[in-house]
Amino acid sequence: MAQATFEEISASDFFYRNRDIAGLTNPSRAIFVAIREIVENSLDAAESQKIPPDVYVRLSYEGEATKETQIYKLRVEDNGSGIPPRFIPSAFGQVLYGSKYKLKQARGTFGLGGKMAVLYGQITTHQPVFVTSSTGQEKIYSFKLMIDIQRNKPIILDRKVLINKDHWRGTIVEFTLEGDYLRAMPKIIEYFKQTAMVNPYANITFVDPKGRLYKFTRATTIMPESPKETMPHPYGVDVELLQRLIQITTCTNMLDFLKGHFHRVGEITAIKFLIFSNLISFSCREHGKIENDQIKWVDSRPSCPSCGKTAEYSSKNPKKLSHEEIVRLMQNLKKYKDFLPPDASCLSPLGEDLLKAGIIKELKPEYLVVHQRKPSTYAGHPFIVELAMAYGGDVPKRGTFVIYRFANKIPLLYDEASDVSYRVISVMNWRRYKVAPEMPIAIVVHICSTKVPYKTVGKEFIADRPEVRREVANALREVARQLQHFLARQEHVHMEKKRLGIFSKYLPKIAEFSTTLAQQKRLPDIDKLLKSVQKYGAEES
Amino acid sequence: MAQATFEEISASDFFYRNRDIAGLTNPSRAIFVAIREIVENSLDAAESQKIPPDVYVRLSYEGEATKETQIYKLRVEDNGSGIPPRFIPSAFGQVLYGSKYKLKQARGTFGLGGKMAVLYGQITTHQPVFVTSSTGQEKIYSFKLMIDIQRNKPIILDRKVLINKDHWRGTIVEFTLEGDYLRAMPKIIEYFKQTAMVNPYANITFVDPKGRLYKFTRATTIMPESPKETMPHPYGVDVELLQRLIQITTCTNMLDFLKGHFHRVGEITAIKFLIFSNLISFSCREHGKIENDQIKWVDSRPSCPSCGKTAEYSSKNPKKLSHEEIVRLMQNLKKYKDFLPPDASCLSPLGEDLLKAGIIKELKPEYLVVHQRKPSTYAGHPFIVELAMAYGGDVPKRGTFVIYRFANKIPLLYDEASDVSYRVISVMNWRRYKVAPEMPIAIVVHICSTKVPYKTVGKEFIADRPEVRREVANALREVARQLQHFLARQEHVHMEKKRLGIFSKYLPKIAEFSTTLAQQKRLPDIDKLLKSVQKYGAEES
Repeated sequence: MAQATFEEISASDFFYRNRDIAGLTNPSRAIFVAIREIVENSLDAAESQKIPPDVYVRLSYEGEATKETQIYKLRVEDNGSGIPPRFIPSAFGQVLYGSKYKLKQARGTFGLGGKMAVLYGQITTHQPVFVTSSTGQEKIYSFKLMIDIQRNKPIILDRKVLINKDHWRGTIVEFTLEGDYLRAMPKIIEYFKQTAMVNPYANITFVDPKGRLYKFTRATTIMPESPKETMPHPYGVDVELLQRLIQITTCTNMLDFLKGHFHRVGEITAIKFLIFSNLISFSCREHGKIENDQIKWVDSRPSCPSCGKTAEYSSKNPKKLSHEEIVRLMQNLKKYKDFLPPDASCLSPLGEDLLKAGIIKELKPEYLVVHQRKPSTYAGHPFIVELAMAYGGDVPKRGTFVIYRFANKIPLLYDEASDVSYRVISVMNWRRYKVAPEMPIAIVVHICSTKVPYKTVGKEFIADRPEVRREVANALREVARQLQHFLARQEHVHMEKKRLGIFSKYLPKIAEFSTTLAQQKRLPDIDKLLKSVQKYGAEES
Repeated sequence: MAQATFEEISASDFFYRNRDIAGLTNPSRAIFVAIREIVENSLDAAESQKIPPDVYVRLSYEGEATKETQIYKLRVEDNGSGIPPRFIPSAFGQVLYGSKYKLKQARGTFGLGGKMAVLYGQITTHQPVFVTSSTGQEKIYSFKLMIDIQRNKPIILDRKVLINKDHWRGTIVEFTLEGDYLRAMPKIIEYFKQTAMVNPYANITFVDPKGRLYKFTRATTIMPESPKETMPHPYGVDVELLQRLIQITTCTNMLDFLKGHFHRVGEITAIKFLIFSNLISFSCREHGKIENDQIKWVDSRPSCPSCGKTAEYSSKNPKKLSHEEIVRLMQNLKKYKDFLPPDASCLSPLGEDLLKAGIIKELKPEYLVVHQRKPSTYAGHPFIVELAMAYGGDVPKRGTFVIYRFANKIPLLYDEASDVSYRVISVMNWRRYKVAPEMPIAIVVHICSTKVPYKTVGKEFIADRPEVRREVANALREVARQLQHFLARQEHVHMEKKRLGIFSKYLPKIAEFSTTLAQQKRLPDIDKLLKSVQKYGAEES
């Protein structure tokens, strides 16, 4: 029997062989994914510059491919940051190359989607991709590219330089791919609709192969705060990361190292942690060495227990830590309970106002409640859950709640049942809140994070991490409670209306008869009486 | 505002940053995935040599890591093929390197799992992996390795060579990792149990951290036919694959190219396809050029319509095809309807007997029906669905069907609701078959393929491909029908028993009275009478 033979494959080759895991399962899904990935890159590119995005998408029919599939040309134009010319070939023609490998919230997280779409176009139509971009400087650069899949390298077929008279800034991507637009259409339109809902500051235009125009106009030009790049939080590190930090650091002691490379670790926290993990030693000029557990804190400074003077301290050079010490350091970082939670400056949630604006624009609900949770963290990654519940209006009655899921402002449209939000919603005790799935209720969940815990590269659904689950559940309870108040109030108002109806029907009669009986001429003021039994404001009755 | 910066990351770095997509979501899941991946490599290594596998797994407690997690040492020994020493470092220390990138059924498909487990061990405990292996030759090789994640290269820390006196063959892998065994335990035990069910020819031993021994002894030494490596089927090719084949081929014409590089394409099929796609031209020595649509087939040979002599033909050199011609060729390969379906020689299904043996061993059902579908194909990949339905016995009554899912003999234990089988089962019209989810019914689905369409690298569930869905549904209908017969028959037998019970109770009395009345002495033979009203064989009543 033959021995096994071994071979090495490139990263593009791996994804070429396993495109199911990037969501490119079939011709219908492929065209959806391709549009989504390129549009998201455009939105990211505009937002990174705090420019309200203008994204123009055109899909045009190019010919028949097989009996069920067609060849389409996809063209996406944006007004984003633009890409410096030296990066363009690799940004579109090399898998695992990109600008998204940072601790910062972005729609793209794998640095893979755009390239996978281009790669899919190439293997189905064997046509190059055209990329035109300018960062707003004097020149516009235009590339014609293909991917060498076996080597994972871009092939530059052509390169042009144009004068940028109008100082245009942005990127245009155009390539052909095989797909099944007719089957993908509902999801694609839904995708644009939902994207418009959570990006109310974006103009999005889509021209489909039949020439139909879908235009989503911005409702505001106010943009959420841009997310900032951040340092890793101590709870999220592993040995590999520690080693990399030690390799690149210029710090010569552990205290500076902790302060300089970790999120929300200041002087005091760092010292206390170093005491906790026994990586620091103190001494007093007068009284000599101080044991770690003897340290007294005076004015937030570690001080000598005998004389109260600020103690001197020294800690090891991180570059001199042994393997075992690095492992112990990592474990202690996870064990230590007093690190500050990550702050949300690296996150860009929508905010309650923007979320409201988006939902009102699309669903026009009778009642809407929006709730943003405080920043939380899983495995050291900060995240924020924003949740809204809309009742009535244009919300369809389906017999189940209508769930809109978003992650870093991306609508998630597939595999709902596997998503953490769906699971939380389906196990909630809704009866407690007098809410039933038969009511016209839409639930909107937005999770933003520097690292959304997707279960698939195709970004279909979010993993059931306990920390995320808890936040979603708490947010859900909060809005459910408010909806319950609204519904109860609505019922009271309804009862009240009925009661007042009866009063206002009979009181005039009674007043009339009583007046006659009392042989009076002037009728008493019933309005006053009616108002006095009214429990709620007149505008509601 | 700062411009985006671009960077390149290695394949191991990508998976290091995105371990969720390989299933390593949390400490409990991680330990499950690590065991599974290494065990599956062992099973593959033994099966590739048609040796009944002996796999020994030991997980031992090494110490505490954090409050909820511990450090474990995982050791897996097998009697498989062994790995030649020059391949060992990369096989365990380089992502996207391996022996699994072939068109052949194997448990591993991504060439990723084992390395991901090792990588996870390294980043959580920073210890090396120890690999000892021999192919049964004179020497045993022992390596101590770590992975350089940023460069995606193995680092050899130590290497030993021992004399292999006993001609031992196999591989031993040992490394430490952080995990949560207590929470993972139920799934791990279930994994071994189900693995034993579909690999009844394997001996599997598992010693857990508490020293408990789980032993699954083989029920047979008969092994299913080894799968063979195969060529790509014409329906599954894309432009990239065509180009690679054209690059490596030594064929100088299209006819030989098609015959030499594609699965089940022989002379006649190739000629007919070339006529279909207008890539061949015919001529007759006497009558000159023959139009493609004029060709007459005589004795399975393309012949001259005028004289009936076998025509001569010529086709282009594949290396001279233009880009456009390659694209058209790919499209025609997909359009052409008369390619033979892939044969199953590259697949290794369990077969009905082995599947039965495994299920009987584990579930001891009252009734069992097993059905194997004919080979089918999706996107050019052959696959076979095997399905069993077990009723009663040790099958638990849960109020829903108990579903066991397998793919290439791997049990799939997570994300059931997203799996194609679950979806098919849940939309079946069970009432038609007089079957209710409340009955004690287990459904076992085994899908084997050269390329199982997993949705995730973590191999949790199978994508909803229409072709796969159809095969599962057909198999399900078939076994449901048979179960229906059994249940109907069981009910009849039950009724019959009741009826016969009444007869056998009253007939002797009637006979006695009649005999007395008729003043006879000898009682008539009631047994004969009873037998004549019996509808079913005596063994059932």
